[in-house]
Amino acid sequence: MTTVKERLKTLRELMKEKNIDAYLVPTDDFHGSEYVGDYFKCRKYITGFTGSAGTAVIMKDMAGLWTDGRYFIQAADQLKGSSIELFKMGEPGVPTIHEFLKNNLKNDMCLGFDGRTVSESEAEELKNLLKGKNIHFSVEKDLIGEIWEDRPELSCEPVMELEVKWAGETRASKIARIRQQMKEEGADIFILTSLDDIAWLLNIRGNDIHCCPVVLSYLIMTEKEIKLFANEKAFQEKVRRNLEADSVRIYPYNEVYAYAQKINKEQNVLISEKCVNSRLVSCIPENVTILDRPNPTLLAKAVKNPVEMENERIAHIKDGVAVTKFIHWMKTKVGEERITELSAAEKLYQFRSEQANFLGDSFDPIIAYGIHAAIVHYSATEETDIPLEAKGMVLADTGGHYLEGTTDITRTVVLGPVSEKEKKYFTAVLRGNLNLAAAKFKYGCTGLNLDYLARGPLWELGEDYNHGTGHGVGYLLNVHEGPNSFRWKNLPGSPAPVFEEGMITSDEPGYYLENEFGIRHENLLLCKKAERTSFGQFMCFEELTMVPFDLDGIDPAQMTERERGLLNVYHEKVYRNISPYLSEEEKKWLKRATRKI
Amino acid sequence: MTTVKERLKTLRELMKEKNIDAYLVPTDDFHGSEYVGDYFKCRKYITGFTGSAGTAVIMKDMAGLWTDGRYFIQAADQLKGSSIELFKMGEPGVPTIHEFLKNNLKNDMCLGFDGRTVSESEAEELKNLLKGKNIHFSVEKDLIGEIWEDRPELSCEPVMELEVKWAGETRASKIARIRQQMKEEGADIFILTSLDDIAWLLNIRGNDIHCCPVVLSYLIMTEKEIKLFANEKAFQEKVRRNLEADSVRIYPYNEVYAYAQKINKEQNVLISEKCVNSRLVSCIPENVTILDRPNPTLLAKAVKNPVEMENERIAHIKDGVAVTKFIHWMKTKVGEERITELSAAEKLYQFRSEQANFLGDSFDPIIAYGIHAAIVHYSATEETDIPLEAKGMVLADTGGHYLEGTTDITRTVVLGPVSEKEKKYFTAVLRGNLNLAAAKFKYGCTGLNLDYLARGPLWELGEDYNHGTGHGVGYLLNVHEGPNSFRWKNLPGSPAPVFEEGMITSDEPGYYLENEFGIRHENLLLCKKAERTSFGQFMCFEELTMVPFDLDGIDPAQMTERERGLLNVYHEKVYRNISPYLSEEEKKWLKRATRKI
Repeated sequence: MTTVKERLKTLRELMKEKNIDAYLVPTDDFHGSEYVGDYFKCRKYITGFTGSAGTAVIMKDMAGLWTDGRYFIQAADQLKGSSIELFKMGEPGVPTIHEFLKNNLKNDMCLGFDGRTVSESEAEELKNLLKGKNIHFSVEKDLIGEIWEDRPELSCEPVMELEVKWAGETRASKIARIRQQMKEEGADIFILTSLDDIAWLLNIRGNDIHCCPVVLSYLIMTEKEIKLFANEKAFQEKVRRNLEADSVRIYPYNEVYAYAQKINKEQNVLISEKCVNSRLVSCIPENVTILDRPNPTLLAKAVKNPVEMENERIAHIKDGVAVTKFIHWMKTKVGEERITELSAAEKLYQFRSEQANFLGDSFDPIIAYGIHAAIVHYSATEETDIPLEAKGMVLADTGGHYLEGTTDITRTVVLGPVSEKEKKYFTAVLRGNLNLAAAKFKYGCTGLNLDYLARGPLWELGEDYNHGTGHGVGYLLNVHEGPNSFRWKNLPGSPAPVFEEGMITSDEPGYYLENEFGIRHENLLLCKKAERTSFGQFMCFEELTMVPFDLDGIDPAQMTERERGLLNVYHEKVYRNISPYLSEEEKKWLKRATRKI
Repeated sequence: MTTVKERLKTLRELMKEKNIDAYLVPTDDFHGSEYVGDYFKCRKYITGFTGSAGTAVIMKDMAGLWTDGRYFIQAADQLKGSSIELFKMGEPGVPTIHEFLKNNLKNDMCLGFDGRTVSESEAEELKNLLKGKNIHFSVEKDLIGEIWEDRPELSCEPVMELEVKWAGETRASKIARIRQQMKEEGADIFILTSLDDIAWLLNIRGNDIHCCPVVLSYLIMTEKEIKLFANEKAFQEKVRRNLEADSVRIYPYNEVYAYAQKINKEQNVLISEKCVNSRLVSCIPENVTILDRPNPTLLAKAVKNPVEMENERIAHIKDGVAVTKFIHWMKTKVGEERITELSAAEKLYQFRSEQANFLGDSFDPIIAYGIHAAIVHYSATEETDIPLEAKGMVLADTGGHYLEGTTDITRTVVLGPVSEKEKKYFTAVLRGNLNLAAAKFKYGCTGLNLDYLARGPLWELGEDYNHGTGHGVGYLLNVHEGPNSFRWKNLPGSPAPVFEEGMITSDEPGYYLENEFGIRHENLLLCKKAERTSFGQFMCFEELTMVPFDLDGIDPAQMTERERGLLNVYHEKVYRNISPYLSEEEKKWLKRATRKI
């Protein structure tokens, strides 16, 4: 294995040869996926940083990595000795990538990146940003690919069809709905390249991205037919026939670029420039009319149908049984038998595997003991793995895919004595979680209106957490799914959408004290209609997640009576739903773990 | 006096003569003021509706009035028998004015309005809306002015200068700050026509609009000089000399249109198209570059300086003394002597007049007894005036102007027995008020993030109120001042700004049950910096208003311990600040009125 320093050296030689002054390496694959297949992990290859978000910039005399609050500690650690500077996004005084490029690129310089890894809207922004400096762009070359000798193959996992009893709507019905929207927008062609949208639309699932059951593909839809650009080998004959019955035909993955070049200029093409890569857009002939709109699949996919909602309830009972058994096991066995972060994760996987229709993790499990829990997206490795002891707390943020849906749950489990300070923040974070879950609100509210409910108890103490309060969750798809979220500020270009019945959003406030401890309490919330009054339609949330919060971490005196009531009602529901699937001993334990406070 | 029906008939004859198919009559004067001088009250003249917000549309066969939730009941009442249809804005199924015009104006029709009463951005929107229908616009004629025989004169009240001990910043310093911003925006000329902005910038006050101490004028600023277009008779020699010393020269009010026509095409003109009337903008030569930006005065005015903040505290103690005396008087005298809504308002005015530096009401007082309180912006007239009795509740929403600032306070006062239902909502609304006032939040929050705190207790019950939770308040200026506010949805084109230290915003949740009762609890909140931690700058509010909430309306059992604590702390502060200025009897009463619950 070459070192990061060696790779940087080779890259810089290549940049010099090609007259590229700055080379940008995002985390993205060619589809804007949040997690990316091994083939696409160029940013990890060139920096050594393994987090799921970050962008590298390499110049002759510097190399920098930009990443967000979740990864500050991990990135600082992994970049040590690499010569790569860490830019902590959002911290005061730290330039954004754009500010950095604007300040450091001189007139007539050349900025390079692989156009397939940068969205059209980001590419446009870069061009606007550097206007007036006569900057050249080199976007056809994949320099990391050129120096990466042992680069993995593109994934080609078998494709399965998701039956209607799981999906709740036929492929034909979904296609008809999207075609109707194309019509309303006046679009002749719809280009869809986000993998979860394609999987949702076609009721297919794959395994081409670690923990994301999607199929590596591009989709181009007209009124009559659908071209799916993918590896034909991934499709069994039966699947291919069924797709064809719904007018979906498979073409080679890479041919999408050639196809785009042949689009007729009389056509209106609907694409979401935020989602489609810039090289694909640049292939479309200039005189074609582009309608830049959010993908019609985005909201349709986020709003779960009644079958999906009912399935998700079942998935969360199964997952609740597994995680409850796991917590019982940890709390009773810690100190008696050797348990490490990694072995605990294996044990949890085993509990989940005992559940029918379990398909795998929905993301890499985070089992973070003690001070590791302060690293927001810590993931134990052989090198960092430590044993759990009968003291302090362990944070477990994990999730599973079932045919009945996707789960994502965090519990912070008390393994032995904890300090008053730990209890104080454990309780404050829990109050935020409970208050948000109990929100009742008028139809029309977004995550911006409700985020305060989760942060309030920490803000009152002058404390906070450096991440959003919640994200949308897919149905047997990406565990981070847009557009719904809980945040107090909009992400640029992503206005918070109105909460609709059927949206599933995580509720996960936290608190992290570097080198001391970390706490996060996460449930998934299903948005539902509440009563309709003369003032309009009210909305509320149903907690899908069914696992007790650890009463050993709570100081009931720091909660209001209402908050204690909310916790008691939740715990009663957990016991009612989970206890039938437990052993007598576990059941007895759960009874106590869900006792009224 | 002619009737509304007769006026409509005359207007329609004139419309026919001038080939105008639809005539739009907004509430606005030529400056986009919220309240308007009597000269400008065309919409009131043509409809008979006296509320402070609303727009009329008159066509051959129909006449409509659009107004918002505050005025639904009042407007329905005042439009009775007028043949004018009420359009309740925001209600399901009710078309907006734009939707109405789009649906009802046929090809080649002519839409008319006085271009001085419609902002440039609204005029642009109308043109865009009706594009493709070949609609003609007639915007030079003031048809209401032509038929209005006894139209009042333009106001011309004397102008006073506001000393620096009240304003906290000299005129020269303010002008220099705004010139600096002009420079940064690349503007040669800045046209300012909003009256409160002009008064703020020049440290002048007048009385040209009922309850708004502003001076009817337009202002045009360059790097060297300031032209103030106003009635010269309003300025004493000394004021005029002082203005000239700061490069401000006075020109006749109406000459601004002729001046605008002469702007040189090499100039960049900064104007806020939302604020400046469309006729003035249409006078600017086409080849002049217009920079459409928020007025630089907007934020500068909203962020009160330390002198203003300290003065406001004093104003609110004076006002608190007056309102406390008033509440004591009402509660002890009701049933004994005859008190009506109007006589109560007079009495309150008298209490305020006893305070030094009191200049007058900051808006028409709302003293609404019993079922009248359900009419959100009810204002008693000789016809509607009713006596207060020793039962139920009276809502008093009033405010004063002092040299030390402007107040705006609502108290709902219990005059005798109240039902459990009244107590339930009195308590819920108060909980919202207290929770919002106690917010602690990260710098960067807007009203969108915090509004839930006020509405939550009502939303939990499936209830709501049809108005924003709070508005900015001027310093001896408009009682409704932008841009800060508490709302859960942005108003179109008015994104909620970040709360800055020094902003004053009202906190006024309410609850209204038609034909039963109405409740509103309003304090003004001063935004201040709280601690700065590793998570950033935290912000909080200080309650400026100093008057007890009526404990007779509260059911403490429906409040959390924290909420009771917040009320107790507030009441202690009220007693400490107000009691020194009361008689022994009033003091004794206040002691009990602010007792711990």
